[in-house]
Amino acid sequence: MISETALRWGGGGSIIRELSAYGAQRAREVGPENVFDFAIGSPSADPPPTLHAAVRRLMDFVPPAELHTYVPAPGIPAVRAKIADYLNRSFSMAYRPEDICLTDGASSALALLCRVLLAPGEEVIIPTPAFPEYWVYVEAMGATVKAVPCLAESFQLDLAALEAAVTERTALVILNSPNNPSGAVYPREDLEQLTAMLSRRERELGRPIYLLADEPYRELVYGGTEVPFLPGMYPDAIYCYSFSKSLSIPGERVGFLALHPEAAERDRLFDAIQGAMRITGYLCVSPLFQLAAAECLGTTADVSVYERNRDLICDGLRRLGYQFPEPQGAFYLLLKAPEGDGRAFSRRCMAEDVLVVPGEEFFCPGYVRLAYCVPEERLRRALPAFRKIAESYGILP
Amino acid sequence: MISETALRWGGGGSIIRELSAYGAQRAREVGPENVFDFAIGSPSADPPPTLHAAVRRLMDFVPPAELHTYVPAPGIPAVRAKIADYLNRSFSMAYRPEDICLTDGASSALALLCRVLLAPGEEVIIPTPAFPEYWVYVEAMGATVKAVPCLAESFQLDLAALEAAVTERTALVILNSPNNPSGAVYPREDLEQLTAMLSRRERELGRPIYLLADEPYRELVYGGTEVPFLPGMYPDAIYCYSFSKSLSIPGERVGFLALHPEAAERDRLFDAIQGAMRITGYLCVSPLFQLAAAECLGTTADVSVYERNRDLICDGLRRLGYQFPEPQGAFYLLLKAPEGDGRAFSRRCMAEDVLVVPGEEFFCPGYVRLAYCVPEERLRRALPAFRKIAESYGILP
Repeated sequence: MISETALRWGGGGSIIRELSAYGAQRAREVGPENVFDFAIGSPSADPPPTLHAAVRRLMDFVPPAELHTYVPAPGIPAVRAKIADYLNRSFSMAYRPEDICLTDGASSALALLCRVLLAPGEEVIIPTPAFPEYWVYVEAMGATVKAVPCLAESFQLDLAALEAAVTERTALVILNSPNNPSGAVYPREDLEQLTAMLSRRERELGRPIYLLADEPYRELVYGGTEVPFLPGMYPDAIYCYSFSKSLSIPGERVGFLALHPEAAERDRLFDAIQGAMRITGYLCVSPLFQLAAAECLGTTADVSVYERNRDLICDGLRRLGYQFPEPQGAFYLLLKAPEGDGRAFSRRCMAEDVLVVPGEEFFCPGYVRLAYCVPEERLRRALPAFRKIAESYGILP
Repeated sequence: MISETALRWGGGGSIIRELSAYGAQRAREVGPENVFDFAIGSPSADPPPTLHAAVRRLMDFVPPAELHTYVPAPGIPAVRAKIADYLNRSFSMAYRPEDICLTDGASSALALLCRVLLAPGEEVIIPTPAFPEYWVYVEAMGATVKAVPCLAESFQLDLAALEAAVTERTALVILNSPNNPSGAVYPREDLEQLTAMLSRRERELGRPIYLLADEPYRELVYGGTEVPFLPGMYPDAIYCYSFSKSLSIPGERVGFLALHPEAAERDRLFDAIQGAMRITGYLCVSPLFQLAAAECLGTTADVSVYERNRDLICDGLRRLGYQFPEPQGAFYLLLKAPEGDGRAFSRRCMAEDVLVVPGEEFFCPGYVRLAYCVPEERLRRALPAFRKIAESYGILP
């Protein structure tokens, strides 16, 4: 009676949740200042003052029944127009307001697109490490993931392996840059090669291969790293964006997808997205928060805190003998497990009240993910614990 | 490639949207004060002052990064506890916080439950008239709706017909009282008979028949009409509630479902709902609005405006010779088409700039739905147009 598909992903807790529950228990036992929780990727920076100012202004000046009413499922027309305009100015694109569709963050955009574009037997190419929820969206449709490991150490794209993975059953490629969990940002040259290969394969196979560009971390890059805009290279790239990280409002669920005006089957695809929204009982994104986010386009929370955190933790860990690729974006770091086993390393860290997620959760064995979106103080205070762990592994220089 | 299921419900506009676009065009031509739009069921009453006060207080006193962060998918624990407590006090129930699951309004609760409880070949019993989105949720799962027309004129449940509709393939019954579009409220005696019948059939068939109690209009009842609490009669009733109408915040998408602690397969069902949430990329309801709504439990917008509207429009239409069952709840009225054709009647009304939805959209042929959740002024000013229409049909007394 009860859907086995739904049960498959509903039962049991995730490791992140288990770590979080353990952290809460330890906080009661030894005090919250002595628990170093780096498990969850929730922004620590405050939303920009412009956001609350916009919310307050909207509440002051828009009649309340109007401010909180139903709005069209793809978004408030003025908000869609502002987003299209912002993308066009930022990335030299030609989006029209009707190409933008507001969604409950990027996750619902990705889930909707998988709902619409996948069928049993089809394949989705995902470079790993990657966010595990992609597997849920894909496998719930009866499609399968072809995981293509990134290059060792650098976690950059393995272009030859990606090309080899494309078959006549490839419906989608999901790309997430800046990457969760590796912090890698894929450079323009690689993306140009990748999209040229996909264009060629589209022509050879006579079917579209959509590229989902999952980019909630776009603004979180360090040292002037460029995040190339994929739809500028490849019309079948669907841009999936969330204001969760840039405005520090992950719980409010405001994001959008942008369909390239020249995407294959553009009109049918847009209609199908609307249909998939109806099937899930989706009506609209909060009008208050879509209006407020639209007023904040081009501004962000003070994301420089993440760069300072990155520098602090990278420097500290390097001195202690740890190995890791230096993150260029997002607020994650993949730390190599000295014994080559991410789960064992995560457990060893837990014993010192340091909470990090085994890389195995992200299809990246032998590492742990450290989310450094925390108060700087917590990073500083965690270094002695990391020293103790390094000593126990004998890696301290 | 593109899902035909999704396309089926995504292409083409709904009649309500078409009416709305026509109304906007006419407003530009003849002035908004001369267009009488009764097509959309969007609350006209302002949210209660307590709601905005709660939102402002939360913004003033909760650290912003904390206020807008990710919260657990089934809801903030304190909010779930408050809701359970409120239901227990109001309806003498014994819900635990873990029986409550926040959802994006009642629509996403219904869609999630259909996702989890239906499979191809199964049947869902729905008394008609009814909200057409139910068909989308059911048919997207490959299940079928068995529509059971309510009694003529009164639009009350046809208990004998409902009993006859139950088969070994019946997985769900969806009940919506106060009803959209009829305004009927099902009395206790009928619901007791219905749930007794369902309990008996559950035992005979050896499988649960879940009853989805879709009750976003619970607080909108007139003349002291009782809205019995279905889970109090039937443990397999799943309560689906939305704050959209009671607090006039439909766009903010705050609702919940409550699983009876003694529901069949309670734990597996709850797990499957969590899995279905992951499949749709759902993460959480806005923490700001779930906290604010929880502070407003037991208070509502000034819903007395809808009762005044109902009295005004019922009195006015009756004097003009129209026939309709007097609504006991919600903010809809089903007006009988003098020529017996709801679509023709809706078109005749359009010619006088009166916008009403053909009852055919709600599986109620021969009627139109009039949503009287509008400023009182609009109702008064529409009466001369209704007089002209009545004259043209020769029904004016």
